[in-house]
Amino acid sequence: MRRIKFTISYDGTEYHGWQVQPGLPTIQGTLETVLGEIEKAGVHVEGSGRTDAGVHALAQVAACSLANPIPVDNLRKAMNRLLPADIRIISVEEGADDFHPRFQAKAKTYEYRIWRDEVCPPFQRRYVYHFPYRINEDAFFAAAPLYAGTHDFTAFAAADEKDELRASKVRTVYSSEMLRQGAMLIYRVRGSGFLKHMVRNLTGTMIDMSRGNMSLDELRALLQPGAQRKACHSAPARGLFLVSVEYP
Amino acid sequence: MRRIKFTISYDGTEYHGWQVQPGLPTIQGTLETVLGEIEKAGVHVEGSGRTDAGVHALAQVAACSLANPIPVDNLRKAMNRLLPADIRIISVEEGADDFHPRFQAKAKTYEYRIWRDEVCPPFQRRYVYHFPYRINEDAFFAAAPLYAGTHDFTAFAAADEKDELRASKVRTVYSSEMLRQGAMLIYRVRGSGFLKHMVRNLTGTMIDMSRGNMSLDELRALLQPGAQRKACHSAPARGLFLVSVEYP
Repeated sequence: MRRIKFTISYDGTEYHGWQVQPGLPTIQGTLETVLGEIEKAGVHVEGSGRTDAGVHALAQVAACSLANPIPVDNLRKAMNRLLPADIRIISVEEGADDFHPRFQAKAKTYEYRIWRDEVCPPFQRRYVYHFPYRINEDAFFAAAPLYAGTHDFTAFAAADEKDELRASKVRTVYSSEMLRQGAMLIYRVRGSGFLKHMVRNLTGTMIDMSRGNMSLDELRALLQPGAQRKACHSAPARGLFLVSVEYP
Repeated sequence: MRRIKFTISYDGTEYHGWQVQPGLPTIQGTLETVLGEIEKAGVHVEGSGRTDAGVHALAQVAACSLANPIPVDNLRKAMNRLLPADIRIISVEEGADDFHPRFQAKAKTYEYRIWRDEVCPPFQRRYVYHFPYRINEDAFFAAAPLYAGTHDFTAFAAADEKDELRASKVRTVYSSEMLRQGAMLIYRVRGSGFLKHMVRNLTGTMIDMSRGNMSLDELRALLQPGAQRKACHSAPARGLFLVSVEYP
């Protein structure tokens, strides 16, 4: 069997997230169906990690094993012919026999996009969180760099992550910055790995700060060892993009 | 009654065009429903012109008459609360009593967007014509300026425009240019007015040229007096944007 590495872009609006769920459209399930047609057998696709329902990807990475000897360029074209237009294969490569997109990922970058003008253009509506309210935007720029470093991110984990309660919530954030592009605030974060809902919770906490509901010191305290999970504003899925996944 | 002037942006993907059609979602129909809720009476909305099913607008202009004394800023906010997110009111102004968005329009600008890369990003799929085939792109840049000037555009009128067969097809194109932005070719045209399907037919004819199916001289001949309607490639609606409408 060959090991194949895919780079995939998707508009997550119409999908119930990455992971296969019986009877619901998912990114993984759609890829497995299309690859099954090409392979004429069941194909299991592994991703670099799950994305939630409604979250988008500029360049998700996935892998599968195939017996079919189709050249990678033809495989890319065949998949793009068979897939719906909201999932696109950017590239296909031969991977090492043991390539595993999740275990071998060294870093991931996410962006969270917030639209600040009163009117959100119709063409942006699926790809931003429209938050036009009067807030202290400086609080975003002050808060974002505080997340950088190695911290216990328990306070920013998903409330429902029951089965991983005992697993370490320590992660390293390599860079964490807020940018402005016209009417859009963009939070860009690159790290070793992310807990479920973590980027949406990091962003939601900054939104709470910008509304005056939390101080910089209170945010710092959430990053200290022993901090408890905090019921924070989780920013909606539609503003979140998986930008890239890095391998050694 | 007050006369109200609206500037409206919409994603036309989910609509059967501008004009009211019984039982089908249209831009005009949706605006009339929302304004009817605010006015508590039937409201007729007039646009600067129709857009076809699937065509988008960055800044369509429309007008209606209202008895309701609501200030224009509140009217804009109320409409944006009631409208679906794919139709947005950019601005609302008091208009002259006799303001008519169609009869008084002095110029309109349209853009047609063509995506040239093999892979069309999922986030662009509703807003471009994906045409990745090998063509002579120079033909676009050579052809576009030929449309400028006052011509009889009969050859570029919609095939089904039966009820206006005797009406003049002479229009003035003030500017007509092809631009490139990354993977996107953009045809931008500004004119006194446009026939039904005219911009899609101007674009489709340039696509025919770029594929070697027509020469520059043959295109010039289509602009001569007495030229007949030509069965040309009509570029799909999704790539077309009404960019702006100008008034004296």
